[in-house]
Amino acid sequence: MTNQAQALNVNITSRFWTRYLNMTVENALPYQWRALNDEVPVDVPEGAAWGENGSQFSHSLRNLRIAAGREEGVFSGQPFQDTDVSKWLEAASYALRRKNAGLNVDELEAHVNEAIELFEGAQDEDGYLDTKFELDLPAEKRFKGLRWSHELYTMGHFIEAAVAHYEVTGSKRALDIAERVANCIGHNFGDGEGQVHGPDGHPEIELALARLYEATGERRWLDLAAWFIRVRGTDPEFFDEQDAAGGPQFYTDLHMPLKYFVQDEPILDKQHAEGHAVRLLYLAAAVSKVGRLLNDQKMLDTAERLWTNIVKHRMYITGAVGSCQVGESFSFDDDLPNDLVYGETCASVAMLFYGKSLMETKPRGSVADVMEKELFNGVLSGVQLDGTRYFYVNPLEADPAASKGNPTKAHILTRRAGWFDCACCPANLGRLITSLDQYLYTVSNDGKTVYAHQFVANKTEFEDGFTIEQTQAGDEYPWSGDITFHVSNPNGLDKKVAVRIPQWSKDYTLEVNGEAVELPVVDGFVTVDASAADTEIHLVLDMSVRRVRASLRVRADIGKLAVARGPIVFCMEQVDNEGPLWLDGMSADANVSESYEPDLLDGVEVLKVKGSRLESPTDDQYRAVDAPLTEREETLTMIPYYAWCNRAEGQMQVWVRETK
Amino acid sequence: MTNQAQALNVNITSRFWTRYLNMTVENALPYQWRALNDEVPVDVPEGAAWGENGSQFSHSLRNLRIAAGREEGVFSGQPFQDTDVSKWLEAASYALRRKNAGLNVDELEAHVNEAIELFEGAQDEDGYLDTKFELDLPAEKRFKGLRWSHELYTMGHFIEAAVAHYEVTGSKRALDIAERVANCIGHNFGDGEGQVHGPDGHPEIELALARLYEATGERRWLDLAAWFIRVRGTDPEFFDEQDAAGGPQFYTDLHMPLKYFVQDEPILDKQHAEGHAVRLLYLAAAVSKVGRLLNDQKMLDTAERLWTNIVKHRMYITGAVGSCQVGESFSFDDDLPNDLVYGETCASVAMLFYGKSLMETKPRGSVADVMEKELFNGVLSGVQLDGTRYFYVNPLEADPAASKGNPTKAHILTRRAGWFDCACCPANLGRLITSLDQYLYTVSNDGKTVYAHQFVANKTEFEDGFTIEQTQAGDEYPWSGDITFHVSNPNGLDKKVAVRIPQWSKDYTLEVNGEAVELPVVDGFVTVDASAADTEIHLVLDMSVRRVRASLRVRADIGKLAVARGPIVFCMEQVDNEGPLWLDGMSADANVSESYEPDLLDGVEVLKVKGSRLESPTDDQYRAVDAPLTEREETLTMIPYYAWCNRAEGQMQVWVRETK
Repeated sequence: MTNQAQALNVNITSRFWTRYLNMTVENALPYQWRALNDEVPVDVPEGAAWGENGSQFSHSLRNLRIAAGREEGVFSGQPFQDTDVSKWLEAASYALRRKNAGLNVDELEAHVNEAIELFEGAQDEDGYLDTKFELDLPAEKRFKGLRWSHELYTMGHFIEAAVAHYEVTGSKRALDIAERVANCIGHNFGDGEGQVHGPDGHPEIELALARLYEATGERRWLDLAAWFIRVRGTDPEFFDEQDAAGGPQFYTDLHMPLKYFVQDEPILDKQHAEGHAVRLLYLAAAVSKVGRLLNDQKMLDTAERLWTNIVKHRMYITGAVGSCQVGESFSFDDDLPNDLVYGETCASVAMLFYGKSLMETKPRGSVADVMEKELFNGVLSGVQLDGTRYFYVNPLEADPAASKGNPTKAHILTRRAGWFDCACCPANLGRLITSLDQYLYTVSNDGKTVYAHQFVANKTEFEDGFTIEQTQAGDEYPWSGDITFHVSNPNGLDKKVAVRIPQWSKDYTLEVNGEAVELPVVDGFVTVDASAADTEIHLVLDMSVRRVRASLRVRADIGKLAVARGPIVFCMEQVDNEGPLWLDGMSADANVSESYEPDLLDGVEVLKVKGSRLESPTDDQYRAVDAPLTEREETLTMIPYYAWCNRAEGQMQVWVRETK
Repeated sequence: MTNQAQALNVNITSRFWTRYLNMTVENALPYQWRALNDEVPVDVPEGAAWGENGSQFSHSLRNLRIAAGREEGVFSGQPFQDTDVSKWLEAASYALRRKNAGLNVDELEAHVNEAIELFEGAQDEDGYLDTKFELDLPAEKRFKGLRWSHELYTMGHFIEAAVAHYEVTGSKRALDIAERVANCIGHNFGDGEGQVHGPDGHPEIELALARLYEATGERRWLDLAAWFIRVRGTDPEFFDEQDAAGGPQFYTDLHMPLKYFVQDEPILDKQHAEGHAVRLLYLAAAVSKVGRLLNDQKMLDTAERLWTNIVKHRMYITGAVGSCQVGESFSFDDDLPNDLVYGETCASVAMLFYGKSLMETKPRGSVADVMEKELFNGVLSGVQLDGTRYFYVNPLEADPAASKGNPTKAHILTRRAGWFDCACCPANLGRLITSLDQYLYTVSNDGKTVYAHQFVANKTEFEDGFTIEQTQAGDEYPWSGDITFHVSNPNGLDKKVAVRIPQWSKDYTLEVNGEAVELPVVDGFVTVDASAADTEIHLVLDMSVRRVRASLRVRADIGKLAVARGPIVFCMEQVDNEGPLWLDGMSADANVSESYEPDLLDGVEVLKVKGSRLESPTDDQYRAVDAPLTEREETLTMIPYYAWCNRAEGQMQVWVRETK
């Protein structure tokens, strides 16, 4: 599989996603630009990490202006502060496409150009581009403290932004800077004498170089990406040696094991998803992508193995990954505590990068199912409905009293924050949402089969004149499961359209050109011949409410039920339910009524569950069992998980106590 | 109430406690001396904090020898490393009393004298005694960095040891050193010009000075203790000002809030038990003691208020206190997570200091109940049956996979450690167990009523010729509840004996001189006239197994049952039960059979519960509810909580899933 035959022009028309796209283009990205440019006071709830140096400002555009000689001043922020601008630039570049949908992107475009100009001005003669090092450290320190320096991470994000800008606009201005960056890296890293023979502590350059290869066709970038993958974890002494040689050190308070950096063993030997979740996932996504581009079986196997481990044992029902706040990391199989979870927004975003690449290797419904789960739950939970406040951590159980009163849970914010000291998540949300069009289709190697694997209404033209229009009836997806693919094949090419049957849809009906058909589900897809001039595929998915149990391996979920409907996981919030929520319960066959409420939370399905509330006749802290506990009938209100924390602050839970 | 009419000579004869006492005297204290003297390699499991500076040795006796001029070298260890020796000295001084019970304490006595000689040699001319400062820092730094310096904490522990040594031996050698220490402190601290006007970051000196007052009758030590209590928290800037003035700083990696130091508000205004649990409890115990000695109502009210808050809302069923690893601290009301708990052994020990003092103010069964709970559960859990390995943290739920695989739970050791980098707990266990005789009786102010509030078999002579012998029938307490008090009053004094009726004993029978009597239970006690020459009080407590529920406020225990019998809380261990233990369940009326097994774990009651094990027909990580889960009959084996982790390493849980 390749993405060479990728769709030329995907126009998202989905009501649900158009709202998110337009909100991002019109509200979130302008807000983020102002934050990066120190133009807005940002509101950060107690507990949110902010202001490494006490600053209330991002300083990231200022760093670039200083490095570009446009302003006097000193560097401020994280070593990787530049990436906040790079990721914004990537997101905003994608966003320029929304001009096609009638949005005014003039101001955004001006800021895009301003950012590129600043990177251009900040770039050193040899291509080096990292304002932390340029402003704060002598040149001989470069690439000498890679445990925490984030130099390649920083440059990788610029490369990704440049590729995006080039792909959207056709302009080579940013791409030229990126190629100079890549040249600098290629010059400094490798097996040759005098070259640095080890990786950056934070993977990212691997994915970036692979994308640069795709954009430019320059094979050496692909080889360099593969080199960074192959060198990773082969020399566990590498960072220590750099320290010992007097390399610059950062975050000396943090004592993270090599596993955190995915540097404890060769990545291609790794059996489990371990360490810092975003580091592991960026790397695994690159392993998958480079493996496919090089047809390297060891890489392909590694990508499959780690994905399987995550999906089967290390992912929450919302798609959240990373069970542990310490090191923002994976922990161990089936350790999925709902109230301690990290579930970084960036990690859910990275799962989409990873899933997309696996689909390109071999399209499978199971992978697309996970991508959908992440999209509608783990990712969207990270952003307030208006796009201007963010979660870094996405819990499945939250209690403001616990977050304030028990430092072990202080990372679980119960209000989204206006910005972060380490502001990786806001722009990652931005670049995912504005590039959603790239996640809807996978085309087979021979170009004949188009896998239409996401139920996001759109109209898409492929380069061979083939078009697919996906429309949705009723309240539209994800609220209704009535989906039609109008396929047009004016040139009568030998074409097939493969439509995903989600694992969650117990039943479905499929009609082709108005006739009911029964087709085998292969790897999660039904494949419909589309060689006629027009083909209409009508799929109706089973959107009935599901009560879900976790495996008995998952200690945290024993005796609990979750509720889902279509791709959406539901939760209870205290604003709708009296609380404490842990007293509320429901049985596996509880009656549930559902209704779409267009005015609530920008339009959501709301569930009313006939449940109960636990009551006790006594109030002692501990007492010998005497009078039994009782269950009082109560109606539980549930809303989509992604929409939580958009009203009053309070308790939230996904998993609900199961009653008989 | 006072303890002036305290028992002269308490001889513990209890089979259960004699074993612990002799083990401590013959095994634990000699082992600890060797550890302090760097004579044994100590075995520390992965995860146990050890070796701040990479050392595998305590170095604490060496520090004293260096300071005393007996050895060359440099200081090593925690700033408060001396306290390991002081607390050992206190424990060993009490242990000398076991000579009366026929133990050979010659070697112990030689080490006691050696330790005193070293402290004597290490003491500065002005009375200052802290080897960290004497060896590592210039004299002008003394008392200038009290946030973390632990100087008064260190000297306080020496004072306590000296008082103990004096009380047991009558020798004033250690007491003289202690008085010089107190003089030095009195000279340096106070409201006068040039004096330091603030407290040590770690309370302890308050309790020590109050004890020094009791031992010497010197009122100024009591006043100085009261001054330290009253100054606490009145100036939240105090530590910052010392830092700003160039005072020495320690633990600069730790950024603890003032609440941690119990310095965020005046202690006498504090409404909730907050901050570092041991700091709060040492201080609260002193507030209680000094309040009683000064008859200071505000202090007495504070002591009551904080105790009530702990017992009603912040204490686990095992007596463990401190819910949070971050800051080894209390968290918030009813936040009692079983798998994240800190429950430091020292905190449970401190609860006994605190409870003893509250009893001296006003004897109440509720307080003595808590003391008993701590003794038989929270405290004893801290030590291996042979006395040579220790828990710092006492969880109510443990899983080796979680402790190794999720850093948030790394503090939950699933093997006791041979020693600690911060070795506060081993010697605290030692000094509590060897002074257990001081926790059995409280005598009323007028000397007429003796409260015999602990069921520890003993024979005790009071100074007025009055004697009480407590004997226990059957397998003896805590396994049997058949207890007899043989009271002898040869001088026919006006005397009463008050016997506690534990809150956990639903029914009991009471006979006086062979006749059944019904007496009112007042404040948890029945009071029996003992003015005759001989009075025999025969109490039979209800030792039937209790299934216990927690309040519905306690989120962590919803849907769970604990099991207790008499004062003993039970637990399940994987060595007896297949596991994972979270699949095991029991109903509130499950049949339980019990048997005393003399050869198991040095003699314990074992419970066999007719329970069940949850089974699932499928194995998906998440699945829509289809086939119901089933319960397979299973017999659960439970052992006393204190005896866990004396066999194979594995899962443990106190709270068990409740089934219908």
